[in-house]
Amino acid sequence: VIRIRNRHENDRDCTAASPEPVLEVMNFLNEVAADYPRAVSFASGRPSETLFRDDLWTEAPSRFMKHLTGLHHGDANRAAKLLAQYGRTGGLINDLIAEQLRRDEGLACVPEQIVVTAGCQEAILLCLQALCTGPADVVLVRNPTYIGITGAAHYLDVKLLAVEPAFGERFSDRLASLVSSLNVTGSVPRALYLTPDFDNPTGSVLPIEERRAILEICSRSRIAVLEDNPYGMFCYDGDRLPTMAAIDEAGVVIYMSTYSKTICPALRVGCAVVPPRLFGSWSESRSLVTELIQRKSFLTVNTSQFNQAVVGGVLLLENCSLGRCARQAADHYRHNRNAMLASLERAFSIRDCGIEWNRPGGGFFLTLSLPFTFGRREVLACAEDYQVLPMPMSFFSLSGSSHTNSVRLAFSNVEQPDIEIGIDRLAQYVRKRLVA
Amino acid sequence: VIRIRNRHENDRDCTAASPEPVLEVMNFLNEVAADYPRAVSFASGRPSETLFRDDLWTEAPSRFMKHLTGLHHGDANRAAKLLAQYGRTGGLINDLIAEQLRRDEGLACVPEQIVVTAGCQEAILLCLQALCTGPADVVLVRNPTYIGITGAAHYLDVKLLAVEPAFGERFSDRLASLVSSLNVTGSVPRALYLTPDFDNPTGSVLPIEERRAILEICSRSRIAVLEDNPYGMFCYDGDRLPTMAAIDEAGVVIYMSTYSKTICPALRVGCAVVPPRLFGSWSESRSLVTELIQRKSFLTVNTSQFNQAVVGGVLLLENCSLGRCARQAADHYRHNRNAMLASLERAFSIRDCGIEWNRPGGGFFLTLSLPFTFGRREVLACAEDYQVLPMPMSFFSLSGSSHTNSVRLAFSNVEQPDIEIGIDRLAQYVRKRLVA
Repeated sequence: VIRIRNRHENDRDCTAASPEPVLEVMNFLNEVAADYPRAVSFASGRPSETLFRDDLWTEAPSRFMKHLTGLHHGDANRAAKLLAQYGRTGGLINDLIAEQLRRDEGLACVPEQIVVTAGCQEAILLCLQALCTGPADVVLVRNPTYIGITGAAHYLDVKLLAVEPAFGERFSDRLASLVSSLNVTGSVPRALYLTPDFDNPTGSVLPIEERRAILEICSRSRIAVLEDNPYGMFCYDGDRLPTMAAIDEAGVVIYMSTYSKTICPALRVGCAVVPPRLFGSWSESRSLVTELIQRKSFLTVNTSQFNQAVVGGVLLLENCSLGRCARQAADHYRHNRNAMLASLERAFSIRDCGIEWNRPGGGFFLTLSLPFTFGRREVLACAEDYQVLPMPMSFFSLSGSSHTNSVRLAFSNVEQPDIEIGIDRLAQYVRKRLVA
Repeated sequence: VIRIRNRHENDRDCTAASPEPVLEVMNFLNEVAADYPRAVSFASGRPSETLFRDDLWTEAPSRFMKHLTGLHHGDANRAAKLLAQYGRTGGLINDLIAEQLRRDEGLACVPEQIVVTAGCQEAILLCLQALCTGPADVVLVRNPTYIGITGAAHYLDVKLLAVEPAFGERFSDRLASLVSSLNVTGSVPRALYLTPDFDNPTGSVLPIEERRAILEICSRSRIAVLEDNPYGMFCYDGDRLPTMAAIDEAGVVIYMSTYSKTICPALRVGCAVVPPRLFGSWSESRSLVTELIQRKSFLTVNTSQFNQAVVGGVLLLENCSLGRCARQAADHYRHNRNAMLASLERAFSIRDCGIEWNRPGGGFFLTLSLPFTFGRREVLACAEDYQVLPMPMSFFSLSGSSHTNSVRLAFSNVEQPDIEIGIDRLAQYVRKRLVA
């Protein structure tokens, strides 16, 4: 019998619940989506296909090829052949990425700090592997959190611990207490995974003073902050906050970037940016970069140069800034968000019965709180009877048994008329439940 | 301090030596190659860039797009947008791959058995992860063996055991004895990794009766055969032997394919093919496919659809067979092999002092045995004083301390005049050593 459990799962003392339900949940959602293809889906946080460039296969790689030909003394044939060959494991377009991160994220970095990965997911996995090498090592996360870290940690047998503030408590205060208590139990927190800007799944933003406080705590305890930032450029109200990497003076933040949302997902190009002095040490920084590259060489060998050429070409065409494209995209997504907020306002006119939602300042997601438990059975009922698919927030919970009374609504890849239709259907379902 | 060792390395009883030297070796080779860029390199087993198609970015994806448009009722815009979006984790072009494997490898398979991966390396890693879930589980390999499995096993903390026949002993007989002795020690062999055709690093071929004997043993002991076949289509003398997957009646062989050698490496597209009835069981087969897909979803999410579109386009253009292209490539590589054999014959006219080489019937590599130890120091001497780079066979040894008296010579990506020059230089070095 092929055993499909994690190899060490019985060996270790896990105070956090096993994230295995995540896998079941993904299967369940895929099945529901397949069974009800005509339902309005607020379940998947995909970028809008209407925003994908038309020149991804033509102009973009041509532009990069011209660039590469220049680097090979005008020998276009040689450049083309090299591009199709095995490439450097650490990446081909690190210089262009460094420049883009400087312009778009205020991140001063050099190409040597960057490891180009097969999407941000590979960056998350490599960082978890490289940072958590001892049996007492743990990774801290918000709860609910992104499924990509839960699943990666599950398969790597890395223990996740939730930092869950009590009502009214600041995240950073809870973090500080938890870190202190871990010192007593012998657990070693190696990393804190965060999406400070327009978090998946909640849509929330970490305030600037919280960012600073977290950096201070992590610096003191030598905890790496894994800053995942897929949505930062899609800001709908006011100015963006600086990324944690941009204000990191202690060398704490490993910044993780992706082109899946700003260019397109099929590229599978992302990166990890290691601080120039990790916890103040240049040599620790070099060691970690080397370690990430070595691990990557036995995982995906190198990130497809074709795909790097597409990203590189877009960056060259856009003068190393995705700001112009992201502003266009943000206009589109802001309209969607506004449509969803307006639809919610119309559909749920009475707010006195525990129905609430946030107003996300950016990103793809909104949280809707309900006065009853919303899980699998409720998803099925919505899909079957109302042709609408929300995503239970409990699916993102570490334990699977908290955050039971809310749903994540993705507004990124739904056509605007469907947003109103979908929210109306959801409201019908909710009203039926409240009457019953 | 960031610890860069494997997390469980001290926890387990390893009778096989740690493969950690592999990492040092890779670094060493990269450095030597960088330090002596003008040396004739027989070190790297890359495909020849002269063979890469010119239509990889133009005709091939266009052809696939036409195909995909057909599947979307003629809506080309919709097809293009979907291709740029997130895709199925298991793959997009499984049907075309199944047909290609049927035509080129005699492998009767259906799309549902196939998991498309980011190169064969990801397939190896996923299979190791999924098959080896218990602390007593081990993977059997030939020795010397491919660095990709050694490195993956190292990072996954999977124990490798060498099947090393005594002089004159058959591999299958040694395998049978080893499996029996493992039963006594409590180790559980889960998989046997093999490149039956034109092995990397030795260039050798497993005879047909050995293939059958191995299948028989593995079937009896429920050991999966991981058949890695990057070189099978590059056959230079006579007919190819059937792949082990093609003669597997017991559902033992997980076949691993790659387009890195037949199309180009930058694509990073390969796959794993799970037998329809794994160890005779349809449900075990389905479980393993599901397990591979779930693990992949937290590693690379999905294999870039762009790159799958290039492969799919080439397959459509070539009527789902790479036979024509591979025959052309084989002509090229056969010339290189013949040039190397002729150069060796000329350069080493006296064979009576322990200098020997094999005549590989295909693939990229040849083994040269020498009457003295050839390791790092010797590589440096060759590079520095003779401007030639051979690859010590000991670098592929599990222990790092066996196979010390031979080198791997790759003839795949060296221009023919350089082959003669390089072998002459190597012979000068060897003669100098023998005289000294």
